[in-house]
Amino acid sequence: MSDEIKYVLDESRLPKFWYNIAADLPAPPPPVLHPATKQPVTPADLEVIFPMSLIEQEVSTEREIEIPRPVRDIYRQWRPTPLYRARRLEKALDTPAKIYYKYEGVSPAGSHKPNTAVAQAFYNKEAGVRRIVTETGAGQWGSSLALAGAFFGLQIEIFMVRVSFEQKPYRRALMESYGARCVASPSSETQSGRAILAQRPDHPGSLGIAISEAVEVAAQSPDTKYALGSVLNHVLLHQTVIGQETMEQLAMAGDEPDVVVGCTGGGSNFAGIAFPFIGRMLRGGRKTRIVAVEPAACPSLTRGRYAYDYGDTAHLTPLVKMHTLGSTFTPPGFHAGGLRYHGMAPLVSHCKELGLIEAKAYPQLSCFEAGVLFARTEGILPAPEANHAIRGAIDEALRCRQEGRSETILFNLCGHGHFDMQAYMDYFAGRLVDQQYDESELAMALAGLPSVNG
Amino acid sequence: MSDEIKYVLDESRLPKFWYNIAADLPAPPPPVLHPATKQPVTPADLEVIFPMSLIEQEVSTEREIEIPRPVRDIYRQWRPTPLYRARRLEKALDTPAKIYYKYEGVSPAGSHKPNTAVAQAFYNKEAGVRRIVTETGAGQWGSSLALAGAFFGLQIEIFMVRVSFEQKPYRRALMESYGARCVASPSSETQSGRAILAQRPDHPGSLGIAISEAVEVAAQSPDTKYALGSVLNHVLLHQTVIGQETMEQLAMAGDEPDVVVGCTGGGSNFAGIAFPFIGRMLRGGRKTRIVAVEPAACPSLTRGRYAYDYGDTAHLTPLVKMHTLGSTFTPPGFHAGGLRYHGMAPLVSHCKELGLIEAKAYPQLSCFEAGVLFARTEGILPAPEANHAIRGAIDEALRCRQEGRSETILFNLCGHGHFDMQAYMDYFAGRLVDQQYDESELAMALAGLPSVNG
Repeated sequence: MSDEIKYVLDESRLPKFWYNIAADLPAPPPPVLHPATKQPVTPADLEVIFPMSLIEQEVSTEREIEIPRPVRDIYRQWRPTPLYRARRLEKALDTPAKIYYKYEGVSPAGSHKPNTAVAQAFYNKEAGVRRIVTETGAGQWGSSLALAGAFFGLQIEIFMVRVSFEQKPYRRALMESYGARCVASPSSETQSGRAILAQRPDHPGSLGIAISEAVEVAAQSPDTKYALGSVLNHVLLHQTVIGQETMEQLAMAGDEPDVVVGCTGGGSNFAGIAFPFIGRMLRGGRKTRIVAVEPAACPSLTRGRYAYDYGDTAHLTPLVKMHTLGSTFTPPGFHAGGLRYHGMAPLVSHCKELGLIEAKAYPQLSCFEAGVLFARTEGILPAPEANHAIRGAIDEALRCRQEGRSETILFNLCGHGHFDMQAYMDYFAGRLVDQQYDESELAMALAGLPSVNG
Repeated sequence: MSDEIKYVLDESRLPKFWYNIAADLPAPPPPVLHPATKQPVTPADLEVIFPMSLIEQEVSTEREIEIPRPVRDIYRQWRPTPLYRARRLEKALDTPAKIYYKYEGVSPAGSHKPNTAVAQAFYNKEAGVRRIVTETGAGQWGSSLALAGAFFGLQIEIFMVRVSFEQKPYRRALMESYGARCVASPSSETQSGRAILAQRPDHPGSLGIAISEAVEVAAQSPDTKYALGSVLNHVLLHQTVIGQETMEQLAMAGDEPDVVVGCTGGGSNFAGIAFPFIGRMLRGGRKTRIVAVEPAACPSLTRGRYAYDYGDTAHLTPLVKMHTLGSTFTPPGFHAGGLRYHGMAPLVSHCKELGLIEAKAYPQLSCFEAGVLFARTEGILPAPEANHAIRGAIDEALRCRQEGRSETILFNLCGHGHFDMQAYMDYFAGRLVDQQYDESELAMALAGLPSVNG
């Protein structure tokens, strides 16, 4: 067995429950506040944009939440996903460390996002919703919700950040292949969009603006709800199938991780792999280092403030306590579009504050370098977002070489890069640079945090 | 078990042998002829461009040829590939038929091509070869050989048909990500290329020309060999893992196919799924209809002549007896680039002549229509080549509905369409048309077949 490279779980071992870290945290995360009253939101406040079953998950403290049968039936198409031992990468790095990676790119949309898209589509369908509106940046989330909508017969409408809409026509084509409608944001279809366009007709858009547009549409139509692809508790919850499967697969390998690495944008793929391991620690189990890797150009965990902030630009969303760069902060246009968000999932932020996780930031060039080495050794071309996790894992492996330690490193390869080839072309042509955010803009964005932070 | 959708074979069931249909054929296919002498080629003739181990496979009549351990070790990264029951597609078609599909897009390069690329890279490495030269059209084969070269530390050089080189920069970027060198063909690097460019400096290229260039380079360098991604016996042999696995998976499902469908360009993915079933029939086993689906714009099996012809334009390759449109025939530029070849694998042609298989030709619009329905029901966005197999399978299912028969239909989904999104964009924008080849050009190409057919 010493040369095994792939650990496949039998379908019967597909998790039957999502793991809810809220049950094991020593203290609950700070409450979510209503954007107008700044008082804790009630489920009724949220019902305008979410179905009640998802709101219940958002506030649940049950450790295990059952995965509905129709959701598991769809998961089974590509889950359990494989866990790989990266033997060729280990050899190339000449490291005594063992490197494992969980590969979520085998889903039809190519990333971990369908884990929650399918669940959210199911609960919305069950609640009688006919249309779901959402936003997307790079397009991983939009294409995943489009896929889930096709499976459940739901109309999907996607506000896609304009710069991505124009630069990534192929992601848009994928969403349209699944039958979704895709609109460039800011658009003239919403009040939030029109207000921005009035000020600047050629505005390139941002995730914050696209969220405002989507929430606005959902709030105005009774048969329409809103869906978010990261950040929220229930989204992170749905991703925990990743870490749960990985635990079983590592047991097959007779191994346990010393370090778990994931990339962080909104925090959902990171939480997916990390929360089951953090939960085990919280329940007195094996001590594991958990490392979040973020882009140096959008460093919410390493440079943001832990404070209440809005999730969107027009301030239509509730206020959540999180590591944030400020909702007016516009990150530079680097290629890992899925990590270009001003805030961090409240649960991930809370874990950081509790000292349960470490965070590191890397500029994009070193991440692409890691991704290309990975492609040439392991064969899979990673998404630019995933390159951050690879960089983090490689650096842990190089540290092991230096220290002569045979640690076990696990990371989440959250998606493939088939729709990100322009980034690789730019990298090979030497056109890619390490972008810096504007320090004064960051200072201003932080100074503008809402007053609830007293 | 009645709602199963996925059949996963345990890794221990990965085939240990490739299946060689030559052992079961009632008559051997006609011999391959030397392009100059027009006498049967000897292994020594071929040794200039292929390693001896592959030449031995080319002429072998052993039923089972052992898959070397290092090749199986790499196969294990993505094999056995899943077999799916297309329940949502069946429902959408309202058919009593059962539809199964084998999914080869889970390989790192996204198609079945690595099955042979890895094997060819292994045998070349073993023979002390340092560099492999090949051609590619749409890029599926080039990226697969680039991947295999990265795994075995071989230098890979790819002549890419110029029109694809320019239209598909992302496929090229994938090959370069794996470390391969990619050259637009016709190029100024070879005599064959220069001769074409002298006549027409803006020549868009063709597979036939790119093959000439690659063979020329290989023939001139002692440490360099040539590799072909389809057509040849040993290439088809390597693909038989597909059908062998499928047989076991269908046994898990307690089912047997009444019809097996595959798309045909050079013939390798079709042979991969079909030959094990044909072999079983030849040995007296279950009768199964075998249907080859080809593009109406390049219909070698349905409109070509069964005759000796060259594999390339410069007539550097041996003469093989096959269904051919003539080596000077230039198919229109439709989107299933992997099916744009003037000839057909000699073994597939031979099976057609023996009445073992049927052939059908479809124009591209009806294939894209089928592919989009498949994406919206099954979630996987298929390659334009694979859309032909889907079209064929859907039409069998619709026939079953009409006839009220619950037949079992199996098809090979040979790859995903992540690098073919421009084709889908064109389809949605109504820019895609059903191209016709030029009847007089076909007549001329057939009239120009080499005189050995006299």
